[in-house]
Amino acid sequence: MKIFVDMALPADALEALKAGAVGHELLFPRTPATSVLAKGDTDPLFFTADIVFGQPDPAAVDRSTLLKWIHVSSSGITRYDNAGFRSLVTGRGIAVSNSAAVFADACAVHVFSFIVAQARNLPAALRTRTPNGTAAWNELRRGSSTLAGESVLILGYGSIGKRLAELLKPLGMEVVGFRRRLRGDEPIPMVTENGLAEAMGRAQHIVNILPDNAGSRGFFDAERFESLSNGAVFYNIGRGVTVDQTALLGALRSGRLKAAWLDVTDPEPLPDDHPLWQQPNCFITPHTAGGQGAEFDVLVRHFIDNLKRFVAGQPLADRVM
Amino acid sequence: MKIFVDMALPADALEALKAGAVGHELLFPRTPATSVLAKGDTDPLFFTADIVFGQPDPAAVDRSTLLKWIHVSSSGITRYDNAGFRSLVTGRGIAVSNSAAVFADACAVHVFSFIVAQARNLPAALRTRTPNGTAAWNELRRGSSTLAGESVLILGYGSIGKRLAELLKPLGMEVVGFRRRLRGDEPIPMVTENGLAEAMGRAQHIVNILPDNAGSRGFFDAERFESLSNGAVFYNIGRGVTVDQTALLGALRSGRLKAAWLDVTDPEPLPDDHPLWQQPNCFITPHTAGGQGAEFDVLVRHFIDNLKRFVAGQPLADRVM
Repeated sequence: MKIFVDMALPADALEALKAGAVGHELLFPRTPATSVLAKGDTDPLFFTADIVFGQPDPAAVDRSTLLKWIHVSSSGITRYDNAGFRSLVTGRGIAVSNSAAVFADACAVHVFSFIVAQARNLPAALRTRTPNGTAAWNELRRGSSTLAGESVLILGYGSIGKRLAELLKPLGMEVVGFRRRLRGDEPIPMVTENGLAEAMGRAQHIVNILPDNAGSRGFFDAERFESLSNGAVFYNIGRGVTVDQTALLGALRSGRLKAAWLDVTDPEPLPDDHPLWQQPNCFITPHTAGGQGAEFDVLVRHFIDNLKRFVAGQPLADRVM
Repeated sequence: MKIFVDMALPADALEALKAGAVGHELLFPRTPATSVLAKGDTDPLFFTADIVFGQPDPAAVDRSTLLKWIHVSSSGITRYDNAGFRSLVTGRGIAVSNSAAVFADACAVHVFSFIVAQARNLPAALRTRTPNGTAAWNELRRGSSTLAGESVLILGYGSIGKRLAELLKPLGMEVVGFRRRLRGDEPIPMVTENGLAEAMGRAQHIVNILPDNAGSRGFFDAERFESLSNGAVFYNIGRGVTVDQTALLGALRSGRLKAAWLDVTDPEPLPDDHPLWQQPNCFITPHTAGGQGAEFDVLVRHFIDNLKRFVAGQPLADRVM
């Protein structure tokens, strides 16, 4: 097979890819993409490939004639998650898989770190030098929590949400998940569209892992934020475009939201003069939720495992189309 | 019984105390202590009490003749944890209990929040505005971790350590506890003095929950820090005096320690010109680990439960002497 590698890899991960793909031909563009968001002209080698590993331009996929399988190197598949692209790959018999399993664990731990940091008031506690016994100190302590008995709603329940629920379990929280279509094997209580409004109004912690697609864009608008319980905390590790950031800012200013923790925004990073940077109860990390020391090694291993499945005619892991 | 209340309580907790202690006489000093570290002259009413709930002055305990039971309102019992005081209360038949159960859960969640915040690089990630794909961004992501497979050593394993181990379980870490004398019912692998040096040299995360007593003061000296594995992370939610802060600073500067997260220091707070404030890999919260919204309610409930036991002649919860 000819495999077009449409992403930059550090040296050790590249070696692992070469070792794992022995017997196949790896094709590298002259200027590899450096980010899932970067986009350049497609290298002519792309059109000779059977398989692409990375972030191919959908327009180039449309012009390709040999392509049989796309393994997307991210968990998000925004560029591909639309009816046009789906019908294109279905019509051509191109399989599409993503790297959800690679990032699920790190993403879950990341949003989990937001939840416990918020519970222990870490941003304020790490900033202050207040002595024991002062009013400010008592306020910090009483504003801290063990999370026991508090409720959390996970929107866009999938592999990240499943892992998050496992991590939350010993804390004694009430965890509820939301997805549009239930699979029936979810290990936590779930709601669909029907129960969503009630679940949103009850939860003290709202975890947004919605993917970016036509149905989710601007999902968190002013009305949704208004429907949350007073003093709820909002977390977003899905995609920035699922949130109306003006509405978010309003909810943070009015106190409807106690705080927001965001790993994703729209755009990324926010412009330096964006008011969310100045909002004291808004905490932003720069889309690092999926990161871990061995990130590229795990990414390559996941692709190699899937390559073996593909060659053997077995079902692909993390197949999305 | 006459119960001397040697601590300040907010109005709702005070009402709960009065309701729970019906049938007994509550005695309040004119100027209640506002902190476990504050110390004033003992009110004459103290010497008429059978029971004291709070933080009595050990010298006053020595002068008391009626006292039968001291319920300390903190988890730490530094002021009482010495041979002289132990022999005093043993000789007089005074029972001493503390409030360990009240604070264990919150303390465990607090140090747990340190561990996951460190794993996800939160202090750096919350400060930066670096765009996706930059070298700084890749460094942030690769410096993040899921904690899976990493090792943690809990020094001073007790109720906090037990709870912490429960919280850590889903993360897939190797957890080892240290206590001087094993009870035999510890649910995690334990070491005593014999295995301590080896365990210290192996662990990537060192959680210090040692109490303050003659045997633990200055326990973490330069030699101990030198014996840690390179790049270990140090957490302290026990007592500040168990750490030689000059040695800690040296270990943070040399890189022997990747980071330190402290909820306790010596003194508290550190003076404004203390170099630990300026050390970029040192993160300090102001002794808020035990805090939670319902802190005083839980504290009072724990005392009332113990009061019932005391009156009924049953064994006290959290009895320490």
